[in-house]
Amino acid sequence: MGAAVQSVRLELAALLEQLEQYASAADEYGAPQKEALAALRRSGLLGSLVPSEYGGLGQNALFASRFIEAIAGVDPSIAIIAFQHLSVVSRILEWGSAAQRQQYLPKLADGRWLAASAWSETGAGANKQNLSTKAVQLDDGQWLIEGTKSFTTGAGLADLYLVLVQTGTNDEQSTYGNSSQTFFLIETTQGITADADTNLAGMRGSSTGFIHLNKCLVSSEQFIGSLGGAPTVINGIRSCGLTLGAVSLGISQAAYELALEHVRSKGLKNSPLLQSALSELHLSLEAVRALVDKVASKEGGEHLAKIAYQSKIFASEASEKICREAQQIIGGSSYVRGRKLERLLRDARAVSLMGPVNRLAKEIIGKELVS
Amino acid sequence: MGAAVQSVRLELAALLEQLEQYASAADEYGAPQKEALAALRRSGLLGSLVPSEYGGLGQNALFASRFIEAIAGVDPSIAIIAFQHLSVVSRILEWGSAAQRQQYLPKLADGRWLAASAWSETGAGANKQNLSTKAVQLDDGQWLIEGTKSFTTGAGLADLYLVLVQTGTNDEQSTYGNSSQTFFLIETTQGITADADTNLAGMRGSSTGFIHLNKCLVSSEQFIGSLGGAPTVINGIRSCGLTLGAVSLGISQAAYELALEHVRSKGLKNSPLLQSALSELHLSLEAVRALVDKVASKEGGEHLAKIAYQSKIFASEASEKICREAQQIIGGSSYVRGRKLERLLRDARAVSLMGPVNRLAKEIIGKELVS
Amino acid sequence: MGAAVQSVRLELAALLEQLEQYASAADEYGAPQKEALAALRRSGLLGSLVPSEYGGLGQNALFASRFIEAIAGVDPSIAIIAFQHLSVVSRILEWGSAAQRQQYLPKLADGRWLAASAWSETGAGANKQNLSTKAVQLDDGQWLIEGTKSFTTGAGLADLYLVLVQTGTNDEQSTYGNSSQTFFLIETTQGITADADTNLAGMRGSSTGFIHLNKCLVSSEQFIGSLGGAPTVINGIRSCGLTLGAVSLGISQAAYELALEHVRSKGLKNSPLLQSALSELHLSLEAVRALVDKVASKEGGEHLAKIAYQSKIFASEASEKICREAQQIIGGSSYVRGRKLERLLRDARAVSLMGPVNRLAKEIIGKELVS
Amino acid sequence: MGAAVQSVRLELAALLEQLEQYASAADEYGAPQKEALAALRRSGLLGSLVPSEYGGLGQNALFASRFIEAIAGVDPSIAIIAFQHLSVVSRILEWGSAAQRQQYLPKLADGRWLAASAWSETGAGANKQNLSTKAVQLDDGQWLIEGTKSFTTGAGLADLYLVLVQTGTNDEQSTYGNSSQTFFLIETTQGITADADTNLAGMRGSSTGFIHLNKCLVSSEQFIGSLGGAPTVINGIRSCGLTLGAVSLGISQAAYELALEHVRSKGLKNSPLLQSALSELHLSLEAVRALVDKVASKEGGEHLAKIAYQSKIFASEASEKICREAQQIIGGSSYVRGRKLERLLRDARAVSLMGPVNRLAKEIIGKELVS
Repeated sequence: MGAAVQSVRLELAALLEQLEQYASAADEYGAPQKEALAALRRSGLLGSLVPSEYGGLGQNALFASRFIEAIAGVDPSIAIIAFQHLSVVSRILEWGSAAQRQQYLPKLADGRWLAASAWSETGAGANKQNLSTKAVQLDDGQWLIEGTKSFTTGAGLADLYLVLVQTGTNDEQSTYGNSSQTFFLIETTQGITADADTNLAGMRGSSTGFIHLNKCLVSSEQFIGSLGGAPTVINGIRSCGLTLGAVSLGISQAAYELALEHVRSKGLKNSPLLQSALSELHLSLEAVRALVDKVASKEGGEHLAKIAYQSKIFASEASEKICREAQQIIGGSSYVRGRKLERLLRDARAVSLMGPVNRLAKEIIGKELVS
Repeated sequence: MGAAVQSVRLELAALLEQLEQYASAADEYGAPQKEALAALRRSGLLGSLVPSEYGGLGQNALFASRFIEAIAGVDPSIAIIAFQHLSVVSRILEWGSAAQRQQYLPKLADGRWLAASAWSETGAGANKQNLSTKAVQLDDGQWLIEGTKSFTTGAGLADLYLVLVQTGTNDEQSTYGNSSQTFFLIETTQGITADADTNLAGMRGSSTGFIHLNKCLVSSEQFIGSLGGAPTVINGIRSCGLTLGAVSLGISQAAYELALEHVRSKGLKNSPLLQSALSELHLSLEAVRALVDKVASKEGGEHLAKIAYQSKIFASEASEKICREAQQIIGGSSYVRGRKLERLLRDARAVSLMGPVNRLAKEIIGKELVS
Repeated sequence: MGAAVQSVRLELAALLEQLEQYASAADEYGAPQKEALAALRRSGLLGSLVPSEYGGLGQNALFASRFIEAIAGVDPSIAIIAFQHLSVVSRILEWGSAAQRQQYLPKLADGRWLAASAWSETGAGANKQNLSTKAVQLDDGQWLIEGTKSFTTGAGLADLYLVLVQTGTNDEQSTYGNSSQTFFLIETTQGITADADTNLAGMRGSSTGFIHLNKCLVSSEQFIGSLGGAPTVINGIRSCGLTLGAVSLGISQAAYELALEHVRSKGLKNSPLLQSALSELHLSLEAVRALVDKVASKEGGEHLAKIAYQSKIFASEASEKICREAQQIIGGSSYVRGRKLERLLRDARAVSLMGPVNRLAKEIIGKELVS
Repeated sequence: MGAAVQSVRLELAALLEQLEQYASAADEYGAPQKEALAALRRSGLLGSLVPSEYGGLGQNALFASRFIEAIAGVDPSIAIIAFQHLSVVSRILEWGSAAQRQQYLPKLADGRWLAASAWSETGAGANKQNLSTKAVQLDDGQWLIEGTKSFTTGAGLADLYLVLVQTGTNDEQSTYGNSSQTFFLIETTQGITADADTNLAGMRGSSTGFIHLNKCLVSSEQFIGSLGGAPTVINGIRSCGLTLGAVSLGISQAAYELALEHVRSKGLKNSPLLQSALSELHLSLEAVRALVDKVASKEGGEHLAKIAYQSKIFASEASEKICREAQQIIGGSSYVRGRKLERLLRDARAVSLMGPVNRLAKEIIGKELVS
């Protein structure tokens, strides 16, 4: 066991070193770099959550969370690609049929395949009550899916997508997902094309963009969860220990370290104002860490789902603040485009705007609290 | 074991019920009510941390922290009295001689005796570099102590005080405590008188005030830690899992519940603005809980001492904010003197100003971070 | 003119000096002190806005605002009593008949009479859509008014009240006031009794409490504005240059000065952290001053009504923050009940909760902005 | 007069329309667009502050401030170019000799010449106590200047620079500028070359970068202020009514309008949460406007210099917050690189980091307050 842990640690260290080399270029060109993706795939770490019988590392959510956090400290874009991959793996572990597990887990464990999630749609409203991506069941029982999903991370890179699709008529008012919607696990070759030229301001190396489903013909064996089971699946995600808060935490840690390094290296250690500024950053960082780790450890009992959303809101708001304050400490030189801190700030901001956008997430929690 | 846990729970529930009856009067008259103190003493919970061989419950810091939190939700003044008692017990457990343990733990466990801490002094400066309470060693080896300590919680109630005393000359610049200072464990009957008529704005039932040491004659056996060992003892406190953050957490939880209850009982459940306001409060509450519980679980490794201070700052700032927002939700009716929320806000504020005051605590952490 | 200005300044200085003596007692006993009220009445400053032909000082809103601000720096309770008086004077100036002006302005100018406003009701909802204080028109044209108003400042002190009354049936949805409501100017002797024992946490010397209207028999000559004209009158108040923000500004200035004085007198001038803390307070103070003065100068054109509400929200939130930060600067000694800063904090908080409570004021402005 | 005002308004409207076309390209390519600069020059508005006898518009600082604000709502980069130009004009008006006025004001008024300021240096420390750009006086009385200035807005565009130069030895500790430093007014042709390829994250169309002074040979007639008079000149700038806060105000107004437009156009007008969010933004906007206008109106008496700094801090912090909140309202679609709001956020952030960086400005004010 000690040897295995040691080996994983070395793998992670090697991965981080490689990612470090390409993060800047990915940001500049607005696309992930092949070398970085290759390093991620061959690191074995994409198999963190996959049980060893399927060739994975068989680790828990806390391990996965810290892995995501570590990557985010170097390249948040790669971190969210990995995050989406792990989220799909987690869904297969919870809901996948024996056939789905057999078919996908080995490939997802060793990095041959990359998985991604496609939930958002332009104009669907943030709470996704009104999807235009629709599945119609044919006479032979198969489903024909047409539509376009937006803000898909890893679009064009993934081999397998977890897609949220309208499978019935919505006649209820729910906050997020509803029983007329179903998740499908669809292979790229089944009719998915991608357009990831969105040119986002942050997370520019995450290949986030549109995927188009063109006459996708899929079977009911490709459900994740039951027909109309979207809300249940979504709720499971909220309790699986994975939170985008881990990405924000990694960003925060890196930003804090840049500020600390500046203060130390520029002979500013004795400035009470800078000490105090670092103290504020560090307090915020530790509060985020406690909450993200709690979610990743699946503590919180019946409140876990709620706390998972809260950790994303809290961590993303904190990470933006920490990046901004770190820039105030370092000054104008950190505001050159492409400097690590400048990039981290844009990436941090992106998490706040990733679904469900913080404003909506707060609203969802609020409704749960009063009911 | 199950039966024991069950019994402790019932004891706690009974205690809370009794405290509830007297909290308001204690606040009005600015003094703890006898009945509340008696209930606390006989609850057995003051022995939470005392090993069973000395007649205590033999529980860990997380247990103690949740006990403090629960009391704080009803009467924060009683909570800080209990907190100080547990802190002294914790010091005896870490540093006490066999004789001290034998002599004091049984009495402190069953509530016959109450313990308190006396560190602060008017004019000593927040970081206590310059104490006027001085111990002079006599020819026979005994120490003669004279001086006055301020902001002592439980002043006049306690039977045993942990007192910070100047035992040498201070020729260094340290942030908090220094090697010319020593802790003594002194019984009230050895020459301590109290004056707790400070009439504070918050924590009015905590008997917080001055104690005077008049020709106190004590022996070296009464040291807690070594001669000049104050900094080491202080550092130990920071790593023992007890944090005033638990008091603030209890206050926050109670304030949140008052606001939630208002929204529910007044038919305001469907207001998106109030839902959202409650959502913000709850997020803040859960972030505090995660950090306080982390400290109480003694997680955080080498960073534990730092996180303990941070939890006090973070929790106390959050609790003030939560109380204020809860008042905005409930409106003017919550601003009548003595209403529970109005009292909680004043108590919450007091924790921010308790030593080390938040501003200083941030400074201390800042110095540690850059070094 | 120079001589007149000089005389007013001396009058103000004398008034402040007297108020200073009684502010603390008023807070302790929860009632305004006779001597303070007498000083206010005889100062002539209650006539600030009354034209000279009626015996007043004939000054503008900026003058009145600075007068209120100055008083609030000493005794915020007296400041809101004066504020309500000036508000009623301002309503009479805008809407009063020749008879009303002739009858009331001279008495209100020289301080023989004190005026107060009575709008709020328990259970009316913050936006006053549902008043239980109702006026029924009798056959002889007179109105019979019954009901109870809450949170009336100056209750029991005033000789004349501006009362918001339901005069019809409300069949519309408006944000604040509606056309089934009317303002009446009612003398105390016409059937008004007071109960100001509310024991508020702040503004304890403002005699804020209930007034009861018992078979009040009044005539249509006592309207302020037309029958059903409440919304128009309320809108006029928002544009008259008087804002509770002036009270918060005075409190903020006083709190800042206490913190500055502490830093200077305790030899802490060279602490970069305290310099920086004072700098933050002062910035906030000046931003508040700019906004309050803008309203008092009736600048802002068509946006004036909006900005007036905003100035109350902004100034009251800032004043609470400034008081809290000032306490952090001064430390625990400022947290003794009755110390000036401790009192100011409670008074500052009260303004945030005064109608329309900040949360509602933001909502009203929001609706105006999108329409 | 009416006709003149009307004509200026038309000129401004025309200018804004033209700037609108090129702002996006300037941001994309990281350089101002020729057409935008040409429009600015020929608008006549660069002569706002120049007296009519020199061919300018002879307007006051409030006029200039609103002009800057209006431009900033369209292209903040052009706004800071204009701001620097007006600042230099203002220095010439305050300190320029008759010859300097005669020589430069006509060209600066009609836009033939553009002026810029060069204060910052890499490594000089934020408070510029240690400049490496040094002037040595030759035997013939002329000054030989060598050095490099950083963060110069309009570098390479300007025909005339106001340069802060070390002219003696610094043996004092001052907060900003000191009496061993002097301002020179230097024409580009006297030996100034530029390198504006800094590739900043914000204000990318402002040509902000380095200027090099290579064997610049200048005379004492080129002083602005006296030899060693830098502190006095700097203080004058702080009281001249021009503040970068006006740039932040223009950005804030534009961001608010984008959010409002989104809410209105997407049918979200009735959302209480969005109404309330807009209400918060608008309050913040109006508080900033009040403070910036106060400075531009040169109100504030002896406090004007302090308030001018405060307005920059307050306005820039608020503008970042307003842009971020507006993005939360609009959602992810506003986070595409180059969208107006995304650009405004980066530009807003740049102002916070422009000299003196907010952290330093607060420190300077703090020192002034306690002294």
